[in-house]
Amino acid sequence: MMIIYSLDLIGTVAFAISGALSAADKKFDWFGATFAAFVTAVGGGSVRDIFIGNVPVSWLGDMNYLIAILIGVLITLLFKPIVMKWKKTLFLFDTIGIGVFTIIGLQKALSFGIHPAMAAIMGMFSAVLGGIIRDTLCNDIPLIFKKEIYAIACLIGAGFYLILNYWLVSDAITIPVSMLMIILIRLTSVNFNLSLPRL
Amino acid sequence: MMIIYSLDLIGTVAFAISGALSAADKKFDWFGATFAAFVTAVGGGSVRDIFIGNVPVSWLGDMNYLIAILIGVLITLLFKPIVMKWKKTLFLFDTIGIGVFTIIGLQKALSFGIHPAMAAIMGMFSAVLGGIIRDTLCNDIPLIFKKEIYAIACLIGAGFYLILNYWLVSDAITIPVSMLMIILIRLTSVNFNLSLPRL
Amino acid sequence: MMIIYSLDLIGTVAFAISGALSAADKKFDWFGATFAAFVTAVGGGSVRDIFIGNVPVSWLGDMNYLIAILIGVLITLLFKPIVMKWKKTLFLFDTIGIGVFTIIGLQKALSFGIHPAMAAIMGMFSAVLGGIIRDTLCNDIPLIFKKEIYAIACLIGAGFYLILNYWLVSDAITIPVSMLMIILIRLTSVNFNLSLPRL
Repeated sequence: MMIIYSLDLIGTVAFAISGALSAADKKFDWFGATFAAFVTAVGGGSVRDIFIGNVPVSWLGDMNYLIAILIGVLITLLFKPIVMKWKKTLFLFDTIGIGVFTIIGLQKALSFGIHPAMAAIMGMFSAVLGGIIRDTLCNDIPLIFKKEIYAIACLIGAGFYLILNYWLVSDAITIPVSMLMIILIRLTSVNFNLSLPRL
Repeated sequence: MMIIYSLDLIGTVAFAISGALSAADKKFDWFGATFAAFVTAVGGGSVRDIFIGNVPVSWLGDMNYLIAILIGVLITLLFKPIVMKWKKTLFLFDTIGIGVFTIIGLQKALSFGIHPAMAAIMGMFSAVLGGIIRDTLCNDIPLIFKKEIYAIACLIGAGFYLILNYWLVSDAITIPVSMLMIILIRLTSVNFNLSLPRL
Repeated sequence: MMIIYSLDLIGTVAFAISGALSAADKKFDWFGATFAAFVTAVGGGSVRDIFIGNVPVSWLGDMNYLIAILIGVLITLLFKPIVMKWKKTLFLFDTIGIGVFTIIGLQKALSFGIHPAMAAIMGMFSAVLGGIIRDTLCNDIPLIFKKEIYAIACLIGAGFYLILNYWLVSDAITIPVSMLMIILIRLTSVNFNLSLPRL
């Protein structure tokens, strides 16, 4: 589980950087940028925790998430031009982040006795709601509503986890395989510029 | 109570359709449309549940709400031109929805020991917050802040429920009468184009 | 504690007036204005309560907050031209409000066993999130993200409270001193037009 925890924190740093970069675009000051980094990184998990009744919300009980966010803001502040050039690396970390956040969120919802189908939605919410709240605060319509395979990748990975879990496959296989599935669907869809049809 | 539960699900379908239609206006993709349908339908009830401490929030424990939302999205997707023509029918279902949502929300808040005046506000929140969150996500100023008798109808109906309840009138009369009152005030105000004065 | 409670209610009136004034700018009707006043006044405390698990949220259990908000809306409605001229007085009450909200929020979080560093963030959230939600609903980018020393003043005052508390200084000194610190930092920064650097 140490690996998953580390990936969770790396995902948090990546989400915080993406929040701080949006804030820089909008000419926010340091507080605004840190706040944007914060909601991007912990917004999804907070809503999940509140919906399932896991309060105090989890980041309130683990200082490492706050530190990961501040590291993300600092990286953006100190190395902004480099971070912009590292877009591919950042995208990779962000993608690892959504894989990890989805499966951790799904497991947490299941542990609170939530129905598997709803737990899959809670997993997806953990991964995508932070970005949606960030875009709403920045007065943008969330990109995720219009473009790209993102939430669907999370739902497919979560569904895959539930199927393997139902077949009693060990977590040691189920967790990495379903995370990888999310990451691969996301990478493939961005690479081939796939998106969902409009309504 | 079977009738109320059915009306609750019909209201959920109507709210989901109104969310999906807003999303179609904004050129959202399928995920965005389903998300908009979802927040419109369960956003108000979720906030009420979270405020009064009813967690996990109620839709997490009843798959029928999720199914009702997906039916609403499917109807919008398959029959969009017809749905647009059915505006009056949709408006009627939506209006039934706010009547039902208000009284169910009010009752739930009372059952959690909330003061009647606050419970009336919680009932109104159940009916109107989903639409407010939808408009905020779609980057619109919620119409409800500027036009039409909507939230006030909910508050009047909730107040009427509380008065009948105080006089120990049976729920079999109190519930339908107060729901009808909300529906009639709303229909009348739209018919005669009434609205609140500006501040 | 009677003084703090009174200041809390005065701060609530001031926050409600600031919400209603934003609403008047946007040509909201009475309901929209009251809703804006409401989220500005109790939005921050509600999020704090939900995050730390203090549900039902505190304003649901004390009618005086609702009354304070309605008084704020009435004052704005009846005396709008005068209120605009009283901007300095209103700003002073608003500033007292953030000082009081921060320290009350911090204490409440500590009483729920939240780590002091996180409790300081919860105190700051209590003071600033209401305004952020108001601006988001009004379709503005929150001013606080771009200008002025505001959240930082709350964090410094909260930190000062924690230090005095750690040294076992009596609450009778700790509370007023840390509130005054927030108020003075805010007044000074507005007076000298200080702001944080952009990212």
